[in-house]
Amino acid sequence: MIRTHDAGSLRASDAGTTVTLAGWVARRRDHGGVIFVDLRDGSGVVQVVFREEDAHALRNEFCVKVVGEVNARPAGNENPDLATGAIEVVASELTVLSEAAPLPLPIDDAVTASDDIRLKYRYLDLRRSGPSKALRLRSRANQIAREVLHARDFNEIETPTLTRSTPEGARDFLVPVRLQPGAWYALPQSPQLFKQLLMVAGMERYYQIARCYRDEDFRADRQPEFTQLDIEMSFVTQDDIIALGEEIVSKLWSELADYQVQLPIPRITWTDAMNRYGSDKPDLRYGVELVELTDYLRGTAFRVFAGAIDAGGYVGAVVMPGGAAQTRKELDGWQDWAKARGARGLAYVVLDAETGEPKGPVAKNLSPEHLSGLADAVGAKPGDAVFFAAANERRDAQELLGAARIEIAKRAKLIDESAWAFCWVVDAPMFERTSNEDGTAGGWTAVHHPFTSPNDEWLDNFESAPDKALAYAYDIVVNGNEIGGGSVRIHRGDVQSRVFDLLGITPDEAQDKFGFLLEAFKYGPPPHAGIALGWDRTCMLLGGFDSIREVISFPKSRGGFDPLTGAPTPITAQQRLEAGVDAKPKAAAGTPGTDGQAAPVERSN
Amino acid sequence: MIRTHDAGSLRASDAGTTVTLAGWVARRRDHGGVIFVDLRDGSGVVQVVFREEDAHALRNEFCVKVVGEVNARPAGNENPDLATGAIEVVASELTVLSEAAPLPLPIDDAVTASDDIRLKYRYLDLRRSGPSKALRLRSRANQIAREVLHARDFNEIETPTLTRSTPEGARDFLVPVRLQPGAWYALPQSPQLFKQLLMVAGMERYYQIARCYRDEDFRADRQPEFTQLDIEMSFVTQDDIIALGEEIVSKLWSELADYQVQLPIPRITWTDAMNRYGSDKPDLRYGVELVELTDYLRGTAFRVFAGAIDAGGYVGAVVMPGGAAQTRKELDGWQDWAKARGARGLAYVVLDAETGEPKGPVAKNLSPEHLSGLADAVGAKPGDAVFFAAANERRDAQELLGAARIEIAKRAKLIDESAWAFCWVVDAPMFERTSNEDGTAGGWTAVHHPFTSPNDEWLDNFESAPDKALAYAYDIVVNGNEIGGGSVRIHRGDVQSRVFDLLGITPDEAQDKFGFLLEAFKYGPPPHAGIALGWDRTCMLLGGFDSIREVISFPKSRGGFDPLTGAPTPITAQQRLEAGVDAKPKAAAGTPGTDGQAAPVERSN
Repeated sequence: MIRTHDAGSLRASDAGTTVTLAGWVARRRDHGGVIFVDLRDGSGVVQVVFREEDAHALRNEFCVKVVGEVNARPAGNENPDLATGAIEVVASELTVLSEAAPLPLPIDDAVTASDDIRLKYRYLDLRRSGPSKALRLRSRANQIAREVLHARDFNEIETPTLTRSTPEGARDFLVPVRLQPGAWYALPQSPQLFKQLLMVAGMERYYQIARCYRDEDFRADRQPEFTQLDIEMSFVTQDDIIALGEEIVSKLWSELADYQVQLPIPRITWTDAMNRYGSDKPDLRYGVELVELTDYLRGTAFRVFAGAIDAGGYVGAVVMPGGAAQTRKELDGWQDWAKARGARGLAYVVLDAETGEPKGPVAKNLSPEHLSGLADAVGAKPGDAVFFAAANERRDAQELLGAARIEIAKRAKLIDESAWAFCWVVDAPMFERTSNEDGTAGGWTAVHHPFTSPNDEWLDNFESAPDKALAYAYDIVVNGNEIGGGSVRIHRGDVQSRVFDLLGITPDEAQDKFGFLLEAFKYGPPPHAGIALGWDRTCMLLGGFDSIREVISFPKSRGGFDPLTGAPTPITAQQRLEAGVDAKPKAAAGTPGTDGQAAPVERSN
Repeated sequence: MIRTHDAGSLRASDAGTTVTLAGWVARRRDHGGVIFVDLRDGSGVVQVVFREEDAHALRNEFCVKVVGEVNARPAGNENPDLATGAIEVVASELTVLSEAAPLPLPIDDAVTASDDIRLKYRYLDLRRSGPSKALRLRSRANQIAREVLHARDFNEIETPTLTRSTPEGARDFLVPVRLQPGAWYALPQSPQLFKQLLMVAGMERYYQIARCYRDEDFRADRQPEFTQLDIEMSFVTQDDIIALGEEIVSKLWSELADYQVQLPIPRITWTDAMNRYGSDKPDLRYGVELVELTDYLRGTAFRVFAGAIDAGGYVGAVVMPGGAAQTRKELDGWQDWAKARGARGLAYVVLDAETGEPKGPVAKNLSPEHLSGLADAVGAKPGDAVFFAAANERRDAQELLGAARIEIAKRAKLIDESAWAFCWVVDAPMFERTSNEDGTAGGWTAVHHPFTSPNDEWLDNFESAPDKALAYAYDIVVNGNEIGGGSVRIHRGDVQSRVFDLLGITPDEAQDKFGFLLEAFKYGPPPHAGIALGWDRTCMLLGGFDSIREVISFPKSRGGFDPLTGAPTPITAQQRLEAGVDAKPKAAAGTPGTDGQAAPVERSN
């Protein structure tokens, strides 16, 4: 080692020791013949004192080696805010290991820079304590999860990332194959397929911190590659996976966020989550629950509500505490907010802060009876605002109210930012209706993926009410963020066939789409279940960051562009030729059981 | 959990306990009214006893749940070869969890199957104890390496796998970018570039078990994706990295191969390795060293040798103990062997087992003096054979002799298969000559990569003798396999410029090729060094396997084909269109410092 000591480790007890340090010039102050330098390395910062003539050339971020003696600081000059604040190092030798040009990005946690500058000079951004701590936290999170899993005899197994395209799923990233011109690999959207095969293989307990790829349109926080903690077990039930997930999450939060998760984490059914919070990933840090008013408002003359009620739909409301104090402009702002979400608007009533009298445009349309009982029906107090939604499809209205609920919590400052609220959302529906192009109801599609098992209650009769049938599928949610999800898988051929039947997949189609997994399932597949935790998002939340980019070493910016390397780039004609990009594929070989199947995909974000 | 106990964990002390087991029917034997089943799960095997009428439907590899009582086996029926051999489980309940069709691949370690069948039914192959142990060993190897690294405060950091193409390096796998039609990502050949940037970023201690990609022609044991344990440290010397490598390797071999590596591992210079073993990855499990005869044979009339000697080249020999006993056919076989390697043949002399008299075609061409002193000069005894090689380029002849040495060890059965011989090969040359198309000597190229540092002796004067200049580059070799390699990197701009000058790279070209790394190096880069261990090969050797495929969950066969999934496949016209495969790239944006650079690549296999 070039150094004998870590800069940040020096204490008063080291006084008198000669040390060799190596690190960066974080700050320099000149004091008549003496130069004070804050020397920074991975462990922290220490003050080094140079004679002016020895160190006049030093500039910020020069990389230096210093030999010196640790001295107690002169009385009164101690810095109690600094771990090394009791001492300083009086330099006797200085070696400049490398110089630094003027910095495009100050190495200062207090300075904000644009994302583009931060990403282009990510190697400077990471010299700041916040960004570097984010990567260190992620490393620790990996270690903690692995400790839990290895203690339970899990095997860490790598699965292929050059694999088979699944044209019917989400978009794959594709890779031309030079040695088989015209043929392409796909990068996996998750290791789902392979982890299920590993269960058929008898590996029983698998995990992997797996890189996954999804070619989606980039929204604010999307990355084309992302990471999940991917887990699968054999001979287990939903409760076993949930218990394992809780152990991992509670260790992570205990060690990295200094928070003791109360176990067991509460479970809420998918239906309750939708009814009460209008979301399948409810933020439980605050109340503001939805109230259904379908029965209460039955018979209303107000056409917006009556139409939904008559169509067998849903009317509901959510209360904004103190919302009556909003200005007209603020209340109009809610209409814009709703329209931006694709709704026609957001009906509301405000309750006079003094009298409790309902006012506002909707109030005129409701009968005196409906108005007088409204505050009690929705649990509102004088001074509150009540927002309504109505729709023929219960879910549409609930999701609008759920989004309004989140917005209310923000605007009314109801969120305790220091709180952690965990829940499992369980009993998700197996199926949902597809729509035909003309808007009529179509067939059924799997909510999770077609290998997800019905729960025991529905195992024998999910065909009788596909819209009500429930799956052993579970998501873990914290503060309104889904950080993981999984399911028990179907392992019985007869159940699998019935699910395919319901989904309108013929045996031939099933073979074509899922051939090699079905082939594997012929040979004594064990009952198995799993989960995937979205690792970027989990680490982001653990560290209290706003963006997953903070916990990614070299993230992409919008559109998948890397400001640092300039990737992606055009390729040369020779690369194109060699890679076989334009080769005609040979006629399909028709290997039985391996044609064109789409892989089920478990995704956590 | 569906089970209460692991099958392989039951012992005599469990007698009387009622257990629920879950696993696979490994073997079934019928004994008049009673059926014995070997039930296998991840922990091992136990004998289960059923009444005939309960279990007649069971076939091999059915997946079952069994409730039963643990009984001591009847006296005389114990099986001391089986961990559970003292007991059996008398079944009271049987549930068939899933059935198994007739097996294409018997689940029997004693049965060999073709690679194609094994890979197509890898999920059955992995139910065999050998293959499943290989994956478990690899999981443990990961864990052991991580323990060492975390104890030394390393950070595990993931680096991007959708990155920038480096057209001048080895071939990249390419990925079209839908959101930037005409632009492509490349899959990384190693994280080299990013780990160096992480050092500039002050992360100081980085590791990653990293997936890497190289589009090479498939030789026997190549996979298009492979894994390396990738490490980089700041403020260290070569000795620090070597010590870290030794700690990892010794822990791995101690825990997984029951072998105590003697530390420190011997170091041999690259030049000594070539001179003594004709290889930069010498197998030190046996002697059979090369002997240089250039001086000894100076003045010979034998044109093959004289030509090389006069041209300033090299003549050498290697001795095959007992090689004189080979038949004429065996000796002719060596000529075929040499021709298959591209040599013109392999000159030899055999020493009569009785008299020591040199015989054979070459003997006729050597003078009596040269013949009489030959045995002493090469260290041969009567009955041995002496193989010669001569070439204008020392390295060409040495490599032929080195290959002969390995072949001699095999044919003469000199290899102790239970032995482990480790060494570091150090002091590798910085540069080697390139050849022009007309065969004349061209300029210089970097042996490792152009960011590898000269050693202290050559730092200031490598230009004076580029062919002799040595690098701080090191490979770790075990039993003739290179399992890892690395180097100290250049971190001084002036040294980097001088290396570029020598390599004939102009500043403009350097900017074009290595722009963003050079940009990063402007801002106080620390001295840094690293290593990468080829993880597939390391695990293969640890487990005593012949192929890296054994330690890969789902390996590809030749040509990168996956017999299980059928990947790669043609893509649909719509996928092609959407992915922007045929889009014309926009004109190069010309971002300064990010155009067209090739990344240095550290590779371990």
